[in-house]
Amino acid sequence: MASILLEVPWMKENCRIVLASSSPRRQEILGLLGLPFEVVKPKFAEDLDKSKYTPREYVMANARIKCAEVVMKLAHPRHPLSEEMERKVGIVIGSDTIVVRGDTILEKPQDADHALEMLQALRGREHQVMTAVAVSVAGAEDPVAICEVTTVTFAELSDEELKAYIATGEPFDKAGGYGIQAVGSLLVTGIRGDYQNVVGLPLGALSRLLVSELGQYRQKVALRD
Amino acid sequence: MASILLEVPWMKENCRIVLASSSPRRQEILGLLGLPFEVVKPKFAEDLDKSKYTPREYVMANARIKCAEVVMKLAHPRHPLSEEMERKVGIVIGSDTIVVRGDTILEKPQDADHALEMLQALRGREHQVMTAVAVSVAGAEDPVAICEVTTVTFAELSDEELKAYIATGEPFDKAGGYGIQAVGSLLVTGIRGDYQNVVGLPLGALSRLLVSELGQYRQKVALRD
Repeated sequence: MASILLEVPWMKENCRIVLASSSPRRQEILGLLGLPFEVVKPKFAEDLDKSKYTPREYVMANARIKCAEVVMKLAHPRHPLSEEMERKVGIVIGSDTIVVRGDTILEKPQDADHALEMLQALRGREHQVMTAVAVSVAGAEDPVAICEVTTVTFAELSDEELKAYIATGEPFDKAGGYGIQAVGSLLVTGIRGDYQNVVGLPLGALSRLLVSELGQYRQKVALRD
Repeated sequence: MASILLEVPWMKENCRIVLASSSPRRQEILGLLGLPFEVVKPKFAEDLDKSKYTPREYVMANARIKCAEVVMKLAHPRHPLSEEMERKVGIVIGSDTIVVRGDTILEKPQDADHALEMLQALRGREHQVMTAVAVSVAGAEDPVAICEVTTVTFAELSDEELKAYIATGEPFDKAGGYGIQAVGSLLVTGIRGDYQNVVGLPLGALSRLLVSELGQYRQKVALRD
């Protein structure tokens, strides 16, 4: 399951890893693997029509689009790559996180009122956090994606408490209006599932996907040779 | 529940908070409250006879002893305190974390073989992480303690994978031989309960304890005045 631990030396030597995400939290989590990676921020406006997707389809589509955009960008480099880089297997990782309450998708709040509304909808009950991860190996334009779901339970909280939390400024760049890895942890009584998935990148699921995609790629290359 | 958010301004003004723990992870989590605090490392050797306690009693005893030791130390300051410090309500927080598999308490591994043995006992199944927190307000020598329990599920892992993990050096200063907040997250498929409790300090439970103990203290003082 965690066999990425055994693959890290090979990947260090033979892969060029690109994270298609501007989230510092995702960068921090991916950094745990001890593999060097670059960050290329996708420009995708995340403006898909939510009414046409289930939450799971929606978050997976976002991750795939971000990944594919960066794959395209890397296919046409502005500067020629070094020979070493040319030789490496490119791996692009795209990701998106949403908070889902019932059938409603909560993304980043626009202002304090919007944050209060979101947090009121979450208090005293369970919701789901879904993070999708899309991976492209060796320039494949159709990334493979998975979606990990974690259930989060919020404490019963007064409006006064929610406002005190919003005043910390933390909700504004976070799906659902809270950050579980910081002061927002005080809003949460518990979770079921993968914690890093709530922060923004399910490292276990991503690792399994990477190992399986790389395995397939290496098999294909071996057959061709 | 999270009403510590409302108490922080008062506590900033009126409390002197001391964390009786040498764990940088506990310091990081406590820091999320935005309250200044000092760190005083307890010298307690953590050598209670485990056979005389249930795991829960054992971890709570450790937290209480660490807390009480630092309370005693602060009661006899080497240098006179400033007037401002004298006026403040002292709060000492002690804590201890253990990993429990069945009835067996796992603490920090002594060497690589010991770490492997621990991780073999944990793989492919559930275990409990218990963190106890003891709080003393205004010099009380008998700290009040609570114990938070989180269930952690490990992936099925081969000896080879466990050895690759041990080679990272991460297991050695950690109860149970893994760190969920770092590379060790790859060993874990999911948790049920409070995440920070697994890292080493259940901030939600600690906050509720602080708010309740401070409330009782203020009531007592008000009655006396």
